[in-house]
Amino acid sequence: MISQIVKDRLISIVGIENVDDSKAGRLVYSYDATPQFQSLPDIIVSPRNTQEIAEIVKLCSEFKIPIVPRGSGTNLCAGTCPTEGGLVLLFKHMNQIIDIDEENLTITVQPGIITLDMIHAVEAKGLFYPPDPSSMKISTIGGNINENSGGLRGLKYGVTRDYVLALEVVLPNGDIIRTGGKLAKDVAGYDLTRLFVGSEGTLGIITEATLKLIPMPETKKTMLALFQDIEAAARSVSKIIANRIIPTTLEFLDQPTLIAVEDFANIGLPTNVKAVLLIEQDGSKDVVDKDMEKIATLCLEENAESVEIAKSEEEADALRTARRVALSALARLKPTTILEDATVPRSEIAKMVRSINEIAEKYQLNICTFGHAGDGNLHPTCLTDVRNTEEIERVEQAFAEIFEKAIDLGGTITGEHGVGVMKAPYLEWKLGKEGISAMKAIKTGFDPLNILNPGKVFAKDSRKRVVIST
Amino acid sequence: MISQIVKDRLISIVGIENVDDSKAGRLVYSYDATPQFQSLPDIIVSPRNTQEIAEIVKLCSEFKIPIVPRGSGTNLCAGTCPTEGGLVLLFKHMNQIIDIDEENLTITVQPGIITLDMIHAVEAKGLFYPPDPSSMKISTIGGNINENSGGLRGLKYGVTRDYVLALEVVLPNGDIIRTGGKLAKDVAGYDLTRLFVGSEGTLGIITEATLKLIPMPETKKTMLALFQDIEAAARSVSKIIANRIIPTTLEFLDQPTLIAVEDFANIGLPTNVKAVLLIEQDGSKDVVDKDMEKIATLCLEENAESVEIAKSEEEADALRTARRVALSALARLKPTTILEDATVPRSEIAKMVRSINEIAEKYQLNICTFGHAGDGNLHPTCLTDVRNTEEIERVEQAFAEIFEKAIDLGGTITGEHGVGVMKAPYLEWKLGKEGISAMKAIKTGFDPLNILNPGKVFAKDSRKRVVIST
Repeated sequence: MISQIVKDRLISIVGIENVDDSKAGRLVYSYDATPQFQSLPDIIVSPRNTQEIAEIVKLCSEFKIPIVPRGSGTNLCAGTCPTEGGLVLLFKHMNQIIDIDEENLTITVQPGIITLDMIHAVEAKGLFYPPDPSSMKISTIGGNINENSGGLRGLKYGVTRDYVLALEVVLPNGDIIRTGGKLAKDVAGYDLTRLFVGSEGTLGIITEATLKLIPMPETKKTMLALFQDIEAAARSVSKIIANRIIPTTLEFLDQPTLIAVEDFANIGLPTNVKAVLLIEQDGSKDVVDKDMEKIATLCLEENAESVEIAKSEEEADALRTARRVALSALARLKPTTILEDATVPRSEIAKMVRSINEIAEKYQLNICTFGHAGDGNLHPTCLTDVRNTEEIERVEQAFAEIFEKAIDLGGTITGEHGVGVMKAPYLEWKLGKEGISAMKAIKTGFDPLNILNPGKVFAKDSRKRVVIST
Repeated sequence: MISQIVKDRLISIVGIENVDDSKAGRLVYSYDATPQFQSLPDIIVSPRNTQEIAEIVKLCSEFKIPIVPRGSGTNLCAGTCPTEGGLVLLFKHMNQIIDIDEENLTITVQPGIITLDMIHAVEAKGLFYPPDPSSMKISTIGGNINENSGGLRGLKYGVTRDYVLALEVVLPNGDIIRTGGKLAKDVAGYDLTRLFVGSEGTLGIITEATLKLIPMPETKKTMLALFQDIEAAARSVSKIIANRIIPTTLEFLDQPTLIAVEDFANIGLPTNVKAVLLIEQDGSKDVVDKDMEKIATLCLEENAESVEIAKSEEEADALRTARRVALSALARLKPTTILEDATVPRSEIAKMVRSINEIAEKYQLNICTFGHAGDGNLHPTCLTDVRNTEEIERVEQAFAEIFEKAIDLGGTITGEHGVGVMKAPYLEWKLGKEGISAMKAIKTGFDPLNILNPGKVFAKDSRKRVVIST
C-alpha cells in the first residue's frame, strides 16, 4: 500500500496526470506476457525525464517501496510482473530518438521507443541495427536492454548486448551515472555498460542508451530446407556452422509449429514435413550466392527432402514473418502457452531436440519446438491449460527435466528470455551456490534496500536438483 | 613481508620449486612494461592448477596478503606492478590449450598461453581469433582478458571482450565459479563473464577461458595512404566510416613515428610525408576489391599524396609488422617512452590530433602520435627521460590536458590499455564520483579485504580537474 503522503509526493514530482492508482490501471500492469504470473502493483507512475526518475527512486528508497521498470511487458520470464507490489514505472513520455550520428554510426534513444520504430528510423538512413526480437513490433529498447534480447539475426550479428555502447542510468541510491560513450573502445574501469544489459531492472533504471549501428548489408537471400527427419534437420544446423558458414538466420520449426503457423498466416508453408530450417544469408551478392549454394548442398547431404529459395523479397519477408508469429499462432490452440528457451552448444542441437520429444512423450504433453537453432537456442512450447492443475504439475516436471538436460549438454536455462521470477528457482543449477552468491554481492552493493525489481533473478528458494541416473 | 609460516604453507601448496623469494626473483617482477613504476613483491608463486590457486587465495585472505596475478607484464598502465608488495602469481604452468572445438567454433585455454601461439594453433585449423594486441608475441591470453586488450583488427572485429564466452574464475573468497559456456546466447543472471573481462585482476583470478572463433576471411588487401597534411589523414578516417565502409584495420602514423619505425625496421616506409594511414580490408575478393577502390578514392579526395596497395602478402605483413613495432622503435630514441591511449569518437579524430600537437608545442615536448585511428584510439607517445624531473613535470601536465581534451570530445582516458595505477587518478574525470562509487560497490562486494591487485583502478586520491577556459 502506498500512503497518501507518498502519493502526494509522486504527484508533485510527475504531475497528477502521470500517477494512477485506480483499480483498472493497477490491473492492466498486474501481469506481463508470461502466463501464470499476476500480482497487483500499488501505483503506476509515468515520469517525463531522468531527473524525475531520480527523485522517484529517492522517494521509494525512503519508504522502501519496490520499483518495477516496465517497457511493453513482452518478456516471457515474468520479469515485469510486480510480484511484491509497489510502483510500476512506465516510459511512455521517454520514447524519443535523441540523435542518429552517421559519422560515428550510432543512435541515441530514450528507453521507451518501440524497437521496430527505431529500426525503421535507422534503415531510412541506410544503416542497420541487427537485434530483432520476435516482439519487436511492440517491445521497447529499454526492455530489450534490460533483458538482453536476442532475435532471428543473432547467429551472425549477436544480441542486444553487442550493440549497447553507452547508458545513462539512475542507480538505486538516486545517483545518475553515464557509462561508455560513442566509442569503439573504452576500458576506463569495470564494464558497467554490459553489467546493466540483461540485469532485468534489478541494478538501475536505464534512462538513455547509445547503440552501435552497422552498414546495411548489400543483399540477402532466404531459403527453406524441408526434412522428414527432425534430427537430420538439427544435424544440418551444426554441419553448416562446422563448414565455416555463419548465416544471418538459421531457424528450426517442427511439424506441429508449421501446421499452427500455416493455419494462422496462410502463406503456403509446407505442413507435410517433419521439420524445416529457415535459413537467411546477407552480405555481398557473390558471398550470399556461394554460401546459399553450399548450405543447400549440406542440407541435401543430410537428406533434406528439398531446398527452396524465396523468389522475391515479399516471399522472404512472409517466411520471416511466419517464424516471428509462431508464438501467437501456437497460443491460439490451447488456453495456455508456455514457451521456454533452453539453450545448448550448437553441436548438441540434435540431442536436445530428441530429448525434448522424449520428455514430452514421457509426461504425455503437447510440446512443439521451434527456435534459433543456429544459436543452440530452442523454444520448446507447451500447449496446455492452467486450470488443469494435474497437467500443469506434469508441465513443470517436464520443463525441469528439459533445463536439466540443457545444462548436462553444456547449455543454460535461458538463452534470451531472462530469469525473472519464472527461472529464478533454476538459476542455481546453472551457476552453483558460489555463482549466485557472486551475483548477490553485486545486487547488494548496488541496491542494499532491494527496492529495484525485487523478487527477480534471485529466488527465495532454489529447486533441489534431482540427478538423473544415466 | 611474508612470514616463514606463510612461506611454508605456500611451499606445501605448490612445491618448493614454485616459490621464490630471492632478491633477484623479486626484482624481476618488481615492474612491468610501464615506465616510472617499480615496487618489490615479497614472493613469487607459480601454481600448477586452479585448486592450488584457490588454496593460495584462501591463505592470502587469512593473512591479508596482496595478490598480483601476472601474465607477461606487457601492459602499459602499471596494472601488474606490485605497488603494495605481496605475492605475484605466475601462470607459467597453466599455459595449455584444453580444446579447439570445430563444431562450436571455440577454443578453451589456460590463461598462461602466449596470444600468438594460440592464434597460430587456431589458424592451423582455418579459424580466426581477431584480437591482436601489438604485444601478442609476448602477451598471454590471461593478461589480454584482464586488460580487455584491443589491437589492429579492433575496428571491424571488436576487442577481447567480444570473444570471451566462458570463464573459470577463483574469487577472492576462494570460491571457484564458471561463467557462460560454449553458447551463442546465455542470459542466466548478470553478465559476470564481461564483468571480469577488463577488471584488471581486481575481482577474481581467471584460470580458464573459452573464446569464440570465426571462419578465416577468404582474402585481404593492405594499403598505405600518404598525406602531407596530418588533419587531412585524420579526416579521411571519419570519412571512410561515414561512407559505410568498416575496414579491418585503419591505423594512423605521423612523420616522427614513420621515421623512427623506418630506421628500426628498414622496409622502405615513406619518411618524407606528414602522416600515413595503414588500411586493411578482408573478406571475399570482390568486396575487398570494391572497398579498397572506394577507400582510395576517398583518401585522394582528402588530398592524399598517393595510395599504394601492397603487392604481396610479404609486403603487407612487413607493413603490419612496422606498425606493431612502433613502440619499440620509438623507445630506442630517448631513455624514457611514455605511451598513452586517449580515445575519442571517430568523428573527433582530426580535432584530437590537432590538440595533441598544440599541447606538445605548449609544453615544448617531443610527442609522436600513432594508433588505431578507426577506433578513435590514438597513442600519443612522449619521448623523454625520467631523470629530467623538470621535463617529467611538463609531461604529466601535457598528458593531463590530453585526457581532459579527450573527455571534452566525448572520449575516454583509456581505450585499450586499462586504468591500473597510472590512470587511476584520472578515472573520476571520466566517470564522476557517482560512477567510481558504483564500481567500488562491486569491488567491495567481491573483495572486502582488498587483497586482489590492490591499488589498481581506484586511486587513493583523484586529480582535481582543472577546467581549461576556452
